[in-house]
Amino acid sequence: MHATPEPTAVRRVACIGAGVIGGGWVAHFLARGYQVTAWDPAPDFEPKLRRLVDAAWPALVELGLADGADRANLTIAATLPEAVADAEFVQESAPEDLGLKQDLLARLDAATPPGVVISSSTSGYGMTEMQSGCTRPERLVVGHPFNPPYLIPLVEVVGGERTERWAVDWASAFFEVAGKSVITMDREVPGFIANRLQEAIWREALHMVANGEATVEQIDSSITEGPGLRWPLFGPCLTFHLAGGEGGMAHMLDHFGPSLKSPWTRLEAPELTDELRDRMVEGCETASDGRDIAELVADRDRAVIAVLRAVEAVRGAR
Amino acid sequence: MHATPEPTAVRRVACIGAGVIGGGWVAHFLARGYQVTAWDPAPDFEPKLRRLVDAAWPALVELGLADGADRANLTIAATLPEAVADAEFVQESAPEDLGLKQDLLARLDAATPPGVVISSSTSGYGMTEMQSGCTRPERLVVGHPFNPPYLIPLVEVVGGERTERWAVDWASAFFEVAGKSVITMDREVPGFIANRLQEAIWREALHMVANGEATVEQIDSSITEGPGLRWPLFGPCLTFHLAGGEGGMAHMLDHFGPSLKSPWTRLEAPELTDELRDRMVEGCETASDGRDIAELVADRDRAVIAVLRAVEAVRGAR
Repeated sequence: MHATPEPTAVRRVACIGAGVIGGGWVAHFLARGYQVTAWDPAPDFEPKLRRLVDAAWPALVELGLADGADRANLTIAATLPEAVADAEFVQESAPEDLGLKQDLLARLDAATPPGVVISSSTSGYGMTEMQSGCTRPERLVVGHPFNPPYLIPLVEVVGGERTERWAVDWASAFFEVAGKSVITMDREVPGFIANRLQEAIWREALHMVANGEATVEQIDSSITEGPGLRWPLFGPCLTFHLAGGEGGMAHMLDHFGPSLKSPWTRLEAPELTDELRDRMVEGCETASDGRDIAELVADRDRAVIAVLRAVEAVRGAR
Repeated sequence: MHATPEPTAVRRVACIGAGVIGGGWVAHFLARGYQVTAWDPAPDFEPKLRRLVDAAWPALVELGLADGADRANLTIAATLPEAVADAEFVQESAPEDLGLKQDLLARLDAATPPGVVISSSTSGYGMTEMQSGCTRPERLVVGHPFNPPYLIPLVEVVGGERTERWAVDWASAFFEVAGKSVITMDREVPGFIANRLQEAIWREALHMVANGEATVEQIDSSITEGPGLRWPLFGPCLTFHLAGGEGGMAHMLDHFGPSLKSPWTRLEAPELTDELRDRMVEGCETASDGRDIAELVADRDRAVIAVLRAVEAVRGAR
């Protein structure tokens, strides 16, 4: 007996935890026109949360608010059960502490109406380990956002072993309705996808700073003046597809493949088997969506110019 | 006895190797108003090179050409010595093959007027190992660009053991004059800075595809819809400075530091010593350039919105 609303019919959202991520979710859902109830165990969270929402609001106004969007639609709950009592969706954004998440999700599970999906913002725990104390684990999913959740579209959705498929599908559909870009994962991987990639960069950066190989400023400039300008349009795979010239990913792997043996990062590379090569080449073909290399290059160039100008305008406004 | 011109006085540039990177350099230098001589050992390189320059030209026109910039300023050399005989700067962009680079740089060194700086586009070799066969190794530097060199500003400049300091300084100054963003490195690190970071992402991505943890399309979307939107303005360090909320990098490391022990990537993290923590915190303070967290957040939000719109415009034009 589910009291699960249609994803498009959801009006009331509960946000549990009101730090940078939880507060960012509050701003996002308010901007999309939802009634939002927030709760956080910190006694003084309300002014901080309102400050965060107020700081985000001009950006959200500029992006375009949904009909009925209003900061007055934010309700501060005094207790956890009060926050979720009539929620139609719950987003949990507590600190990254497994024991804390397990306890909190169990309490949320006990207080949230059956059939209502509960999503965790965890940056890397699997739902299998987090849902261990829940009575109705079938409706718990990971819905991993990026900072700030009110601007960065990505949400990674994945269930745990005891999550039922309908809950994963429902969460993916709901996040799409709520204006997010969703990647639905079929299996649990620690760190999901984007954080594994981002964390690899971050760890290499920390090593370089620790060893005096680069400064914080050099690391940041090396991204903002370099590869970071390509990544808003094409991810690392299509970017390297273009690095192969007219031969694309196939040429790139045949030409630069041996570089995988180079000590260019502390991360060991996988063996570049024929199977992996073909998988990369075919993936790039699919992602190219009918565009040949020249068309992809033209798209990339237009995007890089637009991104350069966008960043210059922000820097120039200082 | 150097016949080294002032960086601002250079008019004639030789580009050796005319593939994706070499051809991109040709397009860049033409757009900046230089006389460019190109040479490549492939007998049919000229039509390919002209196609590449023609494809890049509309983007360069839109960005704004330098006075006197003209595709007619491209000269095709029949031989390597002819290409560099009266060059005031030489950029080498041959395939990534150490033996080939060593031979080629030795030939360039023999044919290029003394005092003229020779720069290699190598993606990761150290100049120390590449300059081994040169008679005048003091003027050889790495000048590592990013694809496409005519749009992505970054050039990483670093010398080898036998490079003299004046050549590194001259190359950095010249690249700035020629419209690039320069990071001058004090020591050789395999892969320099940006490629170490980029390669860490790339290897993690290859592992995930090899293990069926993610598809090419999911990997690319996880960047383009997620962290990739933040990186054009703030690199990984300042991005995480903001993830710490009002406490900045210090709070971020204290809060998420334990995540470095998580298996979120195949790259082992360094020990988060007090020294490393302080270095990251101080680096972020410097990079913040007087802006408090609220001001950084406002800058980031403006940039993300502008980048989102830039990318949407390119996607919408398809």
